[in-house]
Order: sequence, then structure tokens, then C-alpha cells
Amino acid sequence: MLNTTSEQQKQINIAYIGGGSRGWAWRLMTDLALEKDLGGTVRLYDIDFEAAKTNEVIGNKLSSKPEVVGKWQYVAVKSLDEALYGADFVIISILPGTFEEMYSDVHAPEKYGIYQSVGDTTGPGGLIRGLRTVPMYVEFAEAIKRNCPDAWVINYTNPMAICLKALYEVFPKIKAFGCCHEVFGTQKLLTEVVKEFLGEEREISRREIKVNVLGINHFTWFDKASYKTHDLFPLYKEFVNKYYEEGFEKTKGLWEKDYFASANRVKFDLFKRFGLIAAAGDRHLAEFVPYIYLTDKETVYKWKFNLTPVEWRIKHREELIKLSKEYASDQKEVPLNPSGEEGVMQMKAILGLDTLVTNVNLPNMGQIPNLPIGAIVETNAVFTHDDVRPVYAGKLPSDLASIMTRHISNQELIVKAALEKDLNLAKRAFLNDPAVERLPQSKAEQLFEEMISNTKKYLAYLGL
Amino acid sequence: MLNTTSEQQKQINIAYIGGGSRGWAWRLMTDLALEKDLGGTVRLYDIDFEAAKTNEVIGNKLSSKPEVVGKWQYVAVKSLDEALYGADFVIISILPGTFEEMYSDVHAPEKYGIYQSVGDTTGPGGLIRGLRTVPMYVEFAEAIKRNCPDAWVINYTNPMAICLKALYEVFPKIKAFGCCHEVFGTQKLLTEVVKEFLGEEREISRREIKVNVLGINHFTWFDKASYKTHDLFPLYKEFVNKYYEEGFEKTKGLWEKDYFASANRVKFDLFKRFGLIAAAGDRHLAEFVPYIYLTDKETVYKWKFNLTPVEWRIKHREELIKLSKEYASDQKEVPLNPSGEEGVMQMKAILGLDTLVTNVNLPNMGQIPNLPIGAIVETNAVFTHDDVRPVYAGKLPSDLASIMTRHISNQELIVKAALEKDLNLAKRAFLNDPAVERLPQSKAEQLFEEMISNTKKYLAYLGL
Amino acid sequence: MLNTTSEQQKQINIAYIGGGSRGWAWRLMTDLALEKDLGGTVRLYDIDFEAAKTNEVIGNKLSSKPEVVGKWQYVAVKSLDEALYGADFVIISILPGTFEEMYSDVHAPEKYGIYQSVGDTTGPGGLIRGLRTVPMYVEFAEAIKRNCPDAWVINYTNPMAICLKALYEVFPKIKAFGCCHEVFGTQKLLTEVVKEFLGEEREISRREIKVNVLGINHFTWFDKASYKTHDLFPLYKEFVNKYYEEGFEKTKGLWEKDYFASANRVKFDLFKRFGLIAAAGDRHLAEFVPYIYLTDKETVYKWKFNLTPVEWRIKHREELIKLSKEYASDQKEVPLNPSGEEGVMQMKAILGLDTLVTNVNLPNMGQIPNLPIGAIVETNAVFTHDDVRPVYAGKLPSDLASIMTRHISNQELIVKAALEKDLNLAKRAFLNDPAVERLPQSKAEQLFEEMISNTKKYLAYLGL
Amino acid sequence: MLNTTSEQQKQINIAYIGGGSRGWAWRLMTDLALEKDLGGTVRLYDIDFEAAKTNEVIGNKLSSKPEVVGKWQYVAVKSLDEALYGADFVIISILPGTFEEMYSDVHAPEKYGIYQSVGDTTGPGGLIRGLRTVPMYVEFAEAIKRNCPDAWVINYTNPMAICLKALYEVFPKIKAFGCCHEVFGTQKLLTEVVKEFLGEEREISRREIKVNVLGINHFTWFDKASYKTHDLFPLYKEFVNKYYEEGFEKTKGLWEKDYFASANRVKFDLFKRFGLIAAAGDRHLAEFVPYIYLTDKETVYKWKFNLTPVEWRIKHREELIKLSKEYASDQKEVPLNPSGEEGVMQMKAILGLDTLVTNVNLPNMGQIPNLPIGAIVETNAVFTHDDVRPVYAGKLPSDLASIMTRHISNQELIVKAALEKDLNLAKRAFLNDPAVERLPQSKAEQLFEEMISNTKKYLAYLGL
Repeated sequence: MLNTTSEQQKQINIAYIGGGSRGWAWRLMTDLALEKDLGGTVRLYDIDFEAAKTNEVIGNKLSSKPEVVGKWQYVAVKSLDEALYGADFVIISILPGTFEEMYSDVHAPEKYGIYQSVGDTTGPGGLIRGLRTVPMYVEFAEAIKRNCPDAWVINYTNPMAICLKALYEVFPKIKAFGCCHEVFGTQKLLTEVVKEFLGEEREISRREIKVNVLGINHFTWFDKASYKTHDLFPLYKEFVNKYYEEGFEKTKGLWEKDYFASANRVKFDLFKRFGLIAAAGDRHLAEFVPYIYLTDKETVYKWKFNLTPVEWRIKHREELIKLSKEYASDQKEVPLNPSGEEGVMQMKAILGLDTLVTNVNLPNMGQIPNLPIGAIVETNAVFTHDDVRPVYAGKLPSDLASIMTRHISNQELIVKAALEKDLNLAKRAFLNDPAVERLPQSKAEQLFEEMISNTKKYLAYLGL
Repeated sequence: MLNTTSEQQKQINIAYIGGGSRGWAWRLMTDLALEKDLGGTVRLYDIDFEAAKTNEVIGNKLSSKPEVVGKWQYVAVKSLDEALYGADFVIISILPGTFEEMYSDVHAPEKYGIYQSVGDTTGPGGLIRGLRTVPMYVEFAEAIKRNCPDAWVINYTNPMAICLKALYEVFPKIKAFGCCHEVFGTQKLLTEVVKEFLGEEREISRREIKVNVLGINHFTWFDKASYKTHDLFPLYKEFVNKYYEEGFEKTKGLWEKDYFASANRVKFDLFKRFGLIAAAGDRHLAEFVPYIYLTDKETVYKWKFNLTPVEWRIKHREELIKLSKEYASDQKEVPLNPSGEEGVMQMKAILGLDTLVTNVNLPNMGQIPNLPIGAIVETNAVFTHDDVRPVYAGKLPSDLASIMTRHISNQELIVKAALEKDLNLAKRAFLNDPAVERLPQSKAEQLFEEMISNTKKYLAYLGL
Repeated sequence: MLNTTSEQQKQINIAYIGGGSRGWAWRLMTDLALEKDLGGTVRLYDIDFEAAKTNEVIGNKLSSKPEVVGKWQYVAVKSLDEALYGADFVIISILPGTFEEMYSDVHAPEKYGIYQSVGDTTGPGGLIRGLRTVPMYVEFAEAIKRNCPDAWVINYTNPMAICLKALYEVFPKIKAFGCCHEVFGTQKLLTEVVKEFLGEEREISRREIKVNVLGINHFTWFDKASYKTHDLFPLYKEFVNKYYEEGFEKTKGLWEKDYFASANRVKFDLFKRFGLIAAAGDRHLAEFVPYIYLTDKETVYKWKFNLTPVEWRIKHREELIKLSKEYASDQKEVPLNPSGEEGVMQMKAILGLDTLVTNVNLPNMGQIPNLPIGAIVETNAVFTHDDVRPVYAGKLPSDLASIMTRHISNQELIVKAALEKDLNLAKRAFLNDPAVERLPQSKAEQLFEEMISNTKKYLAYLGL
Repeated sequence: MLNTTSEQQKQINIAYIGGGSRGWAWRLMTDLALEKDLGGTVRLYDIDFEAAKTNEVIGNKLSSKPEVVGKWQYVAVKSLDEALYGADFVIISILPGTFEEMYSDVHAPEKYGIYQSVGDTTGPGGLIRGLRTVPMYVEFAEAIKRNCPDAWVINYTNPMAICLKALYEVFPKIKAFGCCHEVFGTQKLLTEVVKEFLGEEREISRREIKVNVLGINHFTWFDKASYKTHDLFPLYKEFVNKYYEEGFEKTKGLWEKDYFASANRVKFDLFKRFGLIAAAGDRHLAEFVPYIYLTDKETVYKWKFNLTPVEWRIKHREELIKLSKEYASDQKEVPLNPSGEEGVMQMKAILGLDTLVTNVNLPNMGQIPNLPIGAIVETNAVFTHDDVRPVYAGKLPSDLASIMTRHISNQELIVKAALEKDLNLAKRAFLNDPAVERLPQSKAEQLFEEMISNTKKYLAYLGL
């Protein structure tokens, strides 16, 4: 596929699964529009065909603007096979199920005293979400194997580890990796450290913060961080000490207004505990050690982060639908700003036009020697022509590794439960979750039944 | 050392550290007395020299009886070096600290709502006990290296994994293993299954129950169990189903009278959860998953096992002291019954007089591929001349492995904390314990301080 | 299958592939006849049905003798499925191809200056033999999966590692292991050491020599050996020094008369080189380091072992056919002596009637940490009810490991070549063999072509 | 050390062991002179102090030129401690022993029919050279540990693997890696492929050829190679087919005039055999499979490469001495051309001024999963601030891996022999070498004795 001349660089085929998306899709469109070296076709596939169709319109409008240097043709297609056939790249960003199921994921456990800040990765919400996601990814993996076995697959969907594990289980030779911007946020926080302690006045790009990344998605860590010739660990320590109690935000107090913001207190506390820099948003980090930060609403408030309500997502979705209509009907213009995501840079490097070192989710081939081989882990990798290779990240502190091993085991049990259609395995995973563990067994089982029932529309494959 | 003729089989040197012991030491004495092929000297070393001296008298009295076929000379010695110099075997069974410290280990957490059934292996009690044990084992390891580097070392002390890890860290070439009879108890339970379901009428030895052992000490499991040509798994399943609610005891209701007894309900419940046979007493098993069985006293009662109070141990100790005086003064005779322990059989095999397959604690060399290399694990091993080799036990189910990985990490952090004299590492281990995890952080830290303070007589090495 | 009562112990089904065999089959028959605890049916399958039929007669005659305690019914069957359906055990001992092909394996390379003492394991002969064996084992594996997936499979055929690897590649859950008596011979040699240096006068069984076995089939080693309380390494060293020049044979000079005998000089020389006891016959050992012992006929003569000519095998086969007729027609009686093989003991242990520790060929699960995982290796294993588990054997000296790694790679490439039907891979293996390596490339390729052509009757599957 | 401001970037301390070198030292000087972002002091240490002194003069002259942007002070020092104390970087490029010993390494085996093209890496020459090198590197490692434990150490000396292994054995926390330009040469060859088959007319830098590097030093391979969007494997295959017989040289026929040149025929033949691109000079590659390319002088000639005679090196050394005098006395000017080496780029990246992905020798942490952990392997690595991390390179084809495993074993045995002062281990390594293996044993041992004797001036530490 990738043996292209400069001419052929303009004939790339991208399949977008979840192509009706109103966030990731638009970010991709603008990044593609800003990249002069590439061009081609993006086939948008979505179970909501109308949404894909709207994005087709939006994308083509964007492409036709004279100031846009990256010219792409967007086509909404009605089947997965149509989208994938002959694709060079496959992008997957879907919502597994609807917000109705997500409402159950996040809020059903609250009656039992279990609070989740996101509910899409691990914990009761993440695991049940995973259980309805796996069969979709089985379908994707089989369709990719059938239509474009050499394509590179970029996953943005959560639960990341469960999605990728499912792809690799079904089609072991798949060239898939997973991208997530949580690490970027922590790099940005470190640029603040640089400004404050090194007196750097110019704007610093988060890419100038060099880090060694290790961990699992949303519970990712740095054990090295530097800016130019400066080791940032001693500076971060000072920073944490200074802001530990109060927290740190670029826009002070934002965390009380924005469900996605935090004062980074969880991150600071984790640094004190483990000596490494936790590199994801506080909302995600907290879910891996719920017994510390998520025991009740007061604790969450004390640590200055939020439990994002699904109602907000539902409401926000309405706004996005409205916005998509405005984009499609020329009432509004898609703003041409780089998204900050790296998908297009990664594609460029994979095409052979660049070499890129960045963090990415991949099966563990030994890059983190004290996590299980085959587990989906997040570390740096080198992207070159038709190649994405993990960089050796080294061992995690053993207590952190043991916390991750538990979540890995639970996530892998969910995949196994789905592949073997064995609900009992899913229950084992559920009961072994650290948030669920706090419940008396009868309560825990009751919660499991309830959540399974709430998402049963997507669990027919389990014989439910 | 071991190149002995039959004559030399009578000149074996055993060093007994903790030689004033009133349980393990007497068991060894009777087993040695009953074994005709061996003889020699047992040097008894104890920080309570009088206790060792009393055991010298008891042991020599026993040896002089005409009906005793294994003739040994017992000598109480005043220094570790004296005990160890030229030893062929070293036995270690000590109480690390006194019952005063153990009282704190077990009962201090109760004020915080943390209940422990034993408190000597993991959990807050086991970890703090470990912290005072490691420096003692450092001393033993150095003395063994100095005096008898080729000797075989048998450890009976808890916390088993911490004791063995410390020995191997200090003297990596040590030939040490750890023995524990908890597995035997589960084999005995399986003989009841055989009697009930196979109608076997003769007395069955627990050694006739063949098992594949895998796990860590006191959280050990069977994934195969058989009696002659019979696979015991389907029978055990039936047995568990039959007795799940009521529990099973050979002497019904014993668990309400005897602090060490249980109705095996924890064991049965763990079988339902994980599909493997948990192979330790319920009191030990519960401590590895305290969030299930140890949340409060009612739960413990419901599961029909006991929280063994240290007062009982103190009182029982008085009885043993009295008994030891009676033994030493001929008022009573040491009963000549086999102890059921395997130490003497193991020594015989190591001397080359037998081949023995039994369960034992050893560093993981791959016998359990999904636990960390170097962790102290319990599996079967083959004992032959100057040789103890683990048998490949296979992988654990991943959820069980993840539970163990956490305790392994905590126990190894305690060893590291002690070796590097870093109290903060000990605190990390403590806070990562699943029983402690349920406390709010400030409470958890307060408990740590309190327990450290209670055992500080033994923590001078940490600069306390 | 194995959940049998004592009654059922008499209803065991054994499938014998190669059931017309005139060596292994008779040995099995006598061992079964001497074992009172077992009984049942042996189904004999052979591509030479007449040979199987004759063995049916011989076996049933034996079984009917009053002094025979193990009663079995022998039935010659015409298809593999018929033999395997419902089998508890499967025994495979076949000649892959005929002596015509074996003649080429062994003697074709001689024109090129390559001498082979056996030619059935590695080297040009073993590799080409392997290439025609794999498709047969693919068929066996598929038939076992279809007919008796839970059966235990015992392989006696060479090349051992290639046969077992093929079985495991095709049916990964197969319960197969490989048995070979070469180790026994070295244990017997060690009984001579015991007699000479310890003055032991009674007959010693080779099973009394305890050894740690590690290596690959026919290039197997001991790094520990003991007799009762005696370490045999210092004694063997003395023994080697004493007999190094002259060699040692129980029947002096036998090696000059018997093509299968040797004076153990290769074994002694390997001890001097590597410090471990080589534990196979000299003829086999030499083929793994042909550049030392097999460079020319004079060298072979100097080291006092033999190149076994295939003519001898052909002639000997005539004698065996004659003998089989005599057995079948009552002219002669099958002598009722234990064969010295362990197949029946192993079956007993697997049935749950015993625990056995002995050496066996199995995939490497870590029992030899410095050989590749999955390679077929030979170590001790513990046999119990429905279970064969390797004992941790430890690391090989790195030079020995590197020599083995090469042969393992070659043998595995042959399996891969056969499974992927890629003759070029077979050639890569062939050219990487240490005996072939000495040839100029054109000669090496010519030899490959010639040998392939000689065995082409069995290589149709490669499109030849 | 590395927490420097831009000012401090001008105060870097480099210790140069072998600072009297007349090749590597001058290359470093010019590269430093051309790099504007760095500056500081280079301390030159050499057992030939005069040579270091001359280089001090040459270096300072160069530094004082107005067109030179990288300003460094060169100081010849008389002791290792003086050179190393407080160093940020340590460069080691020494000749272990003199050309007299090297003469023996290369030419002593010729009488026995063993030909070596270089004789400094493996084979009899490389191994004996290693044996005298290890004690020097033990001294370096101890001195680095004492004087600058955090310094980054760059080794250029051969035998690379033996040198690095010795450093890591003595001081496991050393930050050492090894650099070699052989890979660069193959990248350059691939630029010729690009020119010929893609019609690229502009000059292509070898750094534009992206490769996945895997193997061991001087027996290094590419399993991926690309130029922009082009996979080079199909093109290289065509190239090999075209030039296989004749060979390929940029300057045709050079191989017959220049002892260091070749027609790449070995490389082409290795591609045909193994399907991977061999990535070192033919002279080096041949020494790992001497039975193919080094059996006699005719074979060498046929494959169109050279046996570099040590006489040439001696003569060339005279020229260099003359040249050094001219440089030092202003008769000639050191030409200010980039050397093509990467040392200065690597230092810049380690200082935090850049991110660099390039090939380097490091202990195997799993980057090549089928070579032994801890073996010195060559793969790509990512260089960033105070950090050099290997990139996961993947598995080698098993036959290549087995060839390497043997050389690794031999090289590691040499290190062990030196560290344990056990000449017998060295002999085991020597006898296990594939070139030596072809000799009758008595000859092989005689050669070993002879070569040991020839280098005995450096083997006093072995008690010789």
C-alpha cells in the first residue's frame, strides 16, 4: 500500500468508523486540511448514516476552501466493507451504545455508593461498557482482515485497552495502535512548571517536554521528564509542594465550572505517593485507585475534580448536532485550527515522510517488563515508514505495577468473557474491580445484574 | 557435606534457630526419634537460652528412650555462629518480637475497623511483623554464609515470603526453602470428600491426595487434585454445593469453640468464585481478600471462622511453658507420635535416601509463569540428593494472579524498605494493602504511625 | 477418560500407531503382560497391515498364557480413526519411510565426506528424515484431535523433537510427550562407577542413580548425579580420567563387534570439555558436534564408536520378520522379561496409580531457561494422575546452550518448512547444519538436491 | 550533571580514553569544531602520553581558528582519574595491546588454515584480543564508578560486545553504549539502490534511509528499510539479483586495491540466504560464518573482499604519526569536514538539545526477544535528555539468531574467563568458535596455546 510517489501521496484512502462523530471527525478534517503533503479520500461510515452524510458535506465544504492546502474528498458510505475496502488507514472513534447505556454505566453504581468521574475505562462503568464494545470490535477486526489487512488502524474509542485487545485477539497481525491526548495535558502542565521555575517567557509547545511514558491508558506515568537541558523532576517536586493544598490551574477555579477540569490535586498527591508524574487527567487517574479519591462526593470535592454527569453529555450532544447543521448549511465555518491531536502526523510518519517519537497504546512486547506480555500498554514508540515500534520504557515501581496488573486482568477478562460468550467471566472481572470490591458481595452481585440488564440491548450475543 | 556413608548418616548436624520453641521443636524431636536412618546432633539456639536449655533436656531424654530408633544429641548453644558452624541443615522457627508486638499487629487495626484473623502474613499486621523480621533474617543469612554456606535451610517462620526473600536477597546462593502445613489441611479435607463420595472406608492418608499446588504461602491453590484414578474436581464441586451454606467440619461446630478451626465456608466460596481449590485454612485465606470476608465481625461470624486473639496465644504459651517443665522433669512424657510435618522426610530426601515430591516455598524461577520472577511462591518440588527443584505449576487465573501480585509487591517492598532502611517504602506497602486501602488516607497514615510506634523496639535499625 | 475404578483399570484402550513394529511393540507387550494392575485393549495400526495382524496374534498368544498377569486383547485395525477412537493412550513408533530412504539419509552424505553414526536425529540425515516425517505427524495430530483429544500420546519415533513439535503445532492442546532410553544407558554407566569406586557389590538398578536431566533428545546432559548419599560427579571425574584413553565397556572390545556399542570415549571427552555428564550413546552425541568426532572414519575409529550401516538394519529386519513368524506360529515364545522401558510405568502413573519422576521430552515452558520457549527439550518430569509436568532443570552452560540452539533452530525450520510447504526453509536448515557447513556451498546444495530427490516419494506434499 | 543552561552547554567535560588516537580523536575534534551549541574541555588520556600531548596541540590549534564555531580546550592528562573526574561524557577508543599482538591475532591462525579478514571481533583473533581487553575495561569501569558514575560512556573500541559487557559486569549502573559506523555503510549502499531504481538524482544522505536494525555488532541486519514512501526490500532484491555475480562498488574494482573495500558480494549472498539485509562491511560479516566465506584465500578472492594484513596497519600507522606531527606543527591543517560519525549528535541529544533515533550497542533488555537478555546487541535507540532507550527491534529469523547465540556465548565466556581469571573458560570459548571448530582438536589446542603465548604480556592477570 505504502509504496507511493508524491503523486500517490494525494491518493490515500482513509476509512473512518464512527464517521458521523462530531468531535474527533472534525478535528481530523481540520488537521488534514492543514497538511499540504497528503490528500485523498475519507470514507465515513457510521451506524447513524445521516450524521456521516452531514460530515461528508462539512468535510467537502472545508476541502473546497481556497486556503485549505490538504485536499480530501469525503464520502459517506453505508457499509463497513465499503468503508474499509482498500483502505490505507482506518480510524475508529465510536460511542459504544448510546448515552442511555452510558448513563447506567456512570450513575447506576451511585446508588451503591460508587462514584465514577468518567466511567468509560475501568471500574464498573468501564467494564460494562467494554462488554458491549467487544462484539463491535470483533466485527471491525474481521472486516479489516477481509478488506484491508495491511491498513494501519488508529483507535480513539474507550475503553482503549479493551478495544485494542479485542482487535489483536481476533486478527493478531493487525497493525493497530491507540491514541489518547491525556498525556499531552500533563506535558502542558509541565510547560507551566517550566514557565514558573525557569522563567521561560516564550510560549512552549508541549512537544518540547520530553518524557518517558509508561503505564496503561488513563493511568499513564512519566519517570523522566525534561525540557531542553533541564531535568523537570526536581522542579515538579517544588511545584507540587507549592500547589499541593490549593491545587494548580491555568484558569483558577475552572474546575468548579467545567466538568472536565480539575485542580491537578490528584496528580500531585500521586506524585507524593509514588514519586512518578501521573500523566492523565485527574478524573481518569482517580478511577484506578477509587478507594483514595472516589469514596464519596465530599472526597471528590476535596480533591478538586468532577464527576462528569451523563446529562451534561446529552445536553452537549444537542449543541453539537445544532453546530453540525450550521457547519453543513454554511451558517458557521469550521475553524481552521490545529486540533493538537497527532493522528495526521502519525499517518505522515507511517507513510515515510517523517520520523516521529510519541506515546501510543500497543500490546506489551516487553517495553514494560513488569506488566504482562500482550497487555495493552502505553509508552513511547517510533513511527517510521510502515512501522510503529515501542521504545523500551523500563520497569514500573512494583506497587504501581500491581495496581495496573489488576485492572489489566479485569479488562482482559472482559474481552475473554465477550469472546467466549461467558457472562460469568465478566462477573469475575466486575467483582475484582477495586471500586466494586468495597461492596458486600450480595450488593455487588445485585449491581452487576442491574447494570447488565441496563445494557442488555447490546448483549444479545451473550444469550441475554 | 552430603557425601556420607551409612555411618555418616548418623553424624548429621542440625542447627535449630529458635531452638527454645515449644511447638515446632518438639515436633521435630519426635519425628527425628521415629526415623531410624538418621542421627547426629541438634544444636539449639534461642535468644531465650533457658528455653533452649530446657529443650536440650527434653530432647536428650527422648533420645535415651530404648524404643526410640533415631538417636540424636541435643545441645543448647549461646551464639548463632556456634549453632551454625558446619551445619548440614538449618531450621528456623522463631517468633519475631514478642506477643506484645503481635498484639499490636493484630489488634491495633481493630480500632480502625480492620479485622485480621491471624495477622502474621500480609495485611497491616503481617507487613509490620515483616518489617521487624527482616533484620533478624539478614543476620541469619550472613551467619549462614559465614558458617555453613552449603547447608540446607528450612524456614517455618511467618511471614514466610518475607523471611525467604530476605535470606535470598542477602545471600543469593543460599539453599533455603519454606515449609507450611496449610496445604496438608486441604488435602485432609479432600480425604473427607473421597470418603463421602467414593465410599472409601479405610483411613486415607492426605499424601494419597495428589495435587498441583500453585500460589503464595497461605493463599495457595490446587488446579488439579486426584485420588488414585479419580479426578476430585467434580466431587469437590458437589461437596461444595452440598455444604456451602452450612459449612463442613469433621467435628461439627468446632469452629465456635476453637480459635483455629473453621467451617471451610471461605474455602467453598473461593471455589465458587475462582473455580480452583483454595488450599490453606480459612483464617489465612480471608486475609488476602479482606474486603470479602473480613469487613466486620458479623461477616467473619457468618463465614464461620475466627479472629484468633493474641490473648489466647499468651495464655496458651503459659500452658506450654508448664508443659515444657513437666517434660524436662519427667513428670510427663513427650508423646511419640509423628507430627505430620515433613521436615525429616525432606532431610532424608536431601541426604539422598529418598525421592520426595511435595509443596514448598521457593523463589519463582518460572514455575508460575504469571507471577514475578524471584517472588517467593509455593508449588510442588522434587527433593533428591542435595537438590530441591520446583515442578512447573503453570499459570494462575489472571484475577487470582493479580490479587497475589499486589501482596507480593507489598511484601517485597517491606523487604526493600528494611534492606534500604527506608521507612517510606514500608509506608507505601502498608497503604497499598487491601485492608488498609479501605481507610481514609489520614486514618491509614495514623494507623501506620501507631503500629510502627508499637513495634519500635525492633525498628532501631530504621533510625527510629 | 481417566476416572476409572479398579474394574475400569482393566478396560484401558491403547492405540498403537506403528503397531506392526517388531521391537517397540514386543517390548510393550511383555511390559503389559507383567503389570497386574492394568488391562484392556491394544489396537494395532500399521501401514503394513500384515505386520500388525501378526502382532495381534503374538500379543493375544502372550496374553493367554496362564503366568501372564496383565491381560490384554490385541486387535489389528485398518484405519487410523479406528485405532484412535476413544483411546486413553496413543503410542507412536514408526519408521518414517523405508530403509531405502534411510539409506540415503545416512549414506548419501558420505560421498561428500560427511559421516553419520545414526542419521535419524539431526545432521543431513535427521533433517531430511524429519522433512518426510512431519506430514505423517500432521495426520496423526489431526486424527488424535478428532478421535481422542484427551488421550495421552507417547512418541518413540525419531527425530523426536521434530515429531513432537509437529504434534504440538497442529494440535496445541495435545497431551504428548516423548520417551527415549538413551539417558538410561548413561545411568547404567554410572552404576559401573558406583561399583568400581564405592565397592558396591549388589546389582544396582539404573533407577537408583538420581540425575538432573537437561538438554535436547540425544544431546542430553546431567549436571547432578547421585547414588544414595553420594555425589557422583567427583567419582565420574576419576572414572573419566582413568578410562579416557582406553575407553570403558562392560564387555571389553564390544564396540568393535557391535554397531550399536561404543567405548564411551565421546562421553568422556565431552565431560572434559563441558564439565557435565553427556547422557546419550556416543553415536548420538557425536552427531551434534560432528566437527569433533565425525570428521572422517579414522576419527570415528579413534573415538571408538561406530557408523551404523543401514545394510545392517535391513539384514536385521529380515531376522526380525523371521522371528515374528516364529512367535506367531508358536515355534518360539516371546521371552517374558521387563524391557527396561518406562511406558507402562508412565501409563500407570498417569492413570493415578503411582507417582513417577523420570526424564521425558516436552515443549520448553521454562524448565531450561536458556533454551527457546516452545522448543522440545528433555528434562525430568513428574507423572501423576492425568498429568505430566516438567521439573525445573536450570540453565545449561552457555556454550552447550548455543550448540543446542542451532540444532533446535534447524529442527524447527524443518517443521516450519513442512507446515508451510516451503522447500527453501528446509534448505536453510540443511545449510545451517554443522556437518553440512563444512562443505563448499555448491557441494552443500548439490547434496541437498540429491537427498531430496532420494526421498521424493514422501515429499509430494511439497509439490515435488 | 546535565542540568545546564545555555551557558553551561559551553562547559561540558569530555574524558577521552585513548586520547592519543590518530583516527577517532581527530574525527571527534572536527565534529566538535563544527557544532556551535557545545563547548568545554576535552581531557585526553593515553598510555602513550606523547600522543595525547600531540593531540592536545592539534585540538587547541583547531579550536583557535576563527571559522571554528565549537570552542573546546584540549588537555592531555597523565592519569585515568584525572581524565575522568567530573566528566559528563567518556569516550573510549583504544588499541588493546599493540600491533604485535594484533599480528598474532590475525596471522597466527593462518598457518592452521584459518583466515580472518579483520580479526578484532570474534573468531580466534577477536576472542584472544578480547581476553587482553577485558582487564583494561575493568579498570575503566572502576575508575568511572569512582570519578563520574553519572557520565555517559561511548565506546568505539573492538571487540565492541566484549568491551561493553565488561563495563556492565563491573559497574551495572554504568550509562554506556557502543557506536559503530558499519551500519552507515550499508545505508550508503542503499542510497545507491535508490539512485539506480528510483532515479533520484540529488545526493541522498544515508540518514534518509530508514532502517530497523537488529543483530550484534558487525553482524547486524535490517529487516525493514525505506526511503521516503518507498519500501526498499523489493528494490534491494532486484539490485542483488543484478549485481550478485559481479558485485557492486561505487568505484569499480576498488576492492582489489583497498584492503578495506569489497564488492558487497558477501552481503548479497547473505541476503539470498536469509532474506534480510546484512548491514556491516563484508570483511566483518564473513567472520561470523567463516565456513562460507573464509575457508581459504581463493574463496575470499572469489567473494571479492580482503584479508586486511596487520603489516598494512603498521605501515599506515607510520603515516598517521607523520601526519600528526604535521598537524601539530602547522605544516598541515586538519580538514574541517564532518566525519560522518554520530558521537557529537548523540551528546547533543543526551544533553537535551535534540531527539535522535539511531543504531547503537546496548545490553539486550528484550529489544531482540530471541537473543539472550543481557547480551550486547545492536538496534535502534532513542536519544533524549540523559537517556538512551532501545527501540523494540523484534525477533531475528531463528537460524540467524542461532548463529549469533554462538558468538554471544563465546564472547561472554571470554568476559567471564577474564573476570574469574579462568583460562580454561577462555579455551572453551575458543574451541566453540566456528573457525576453530574446523581444526582437529589437537591443532585447535595448539593454536590456542600459541596465541595465548603471543599475547601473554597482557595476560599476567591470568597468572600466566
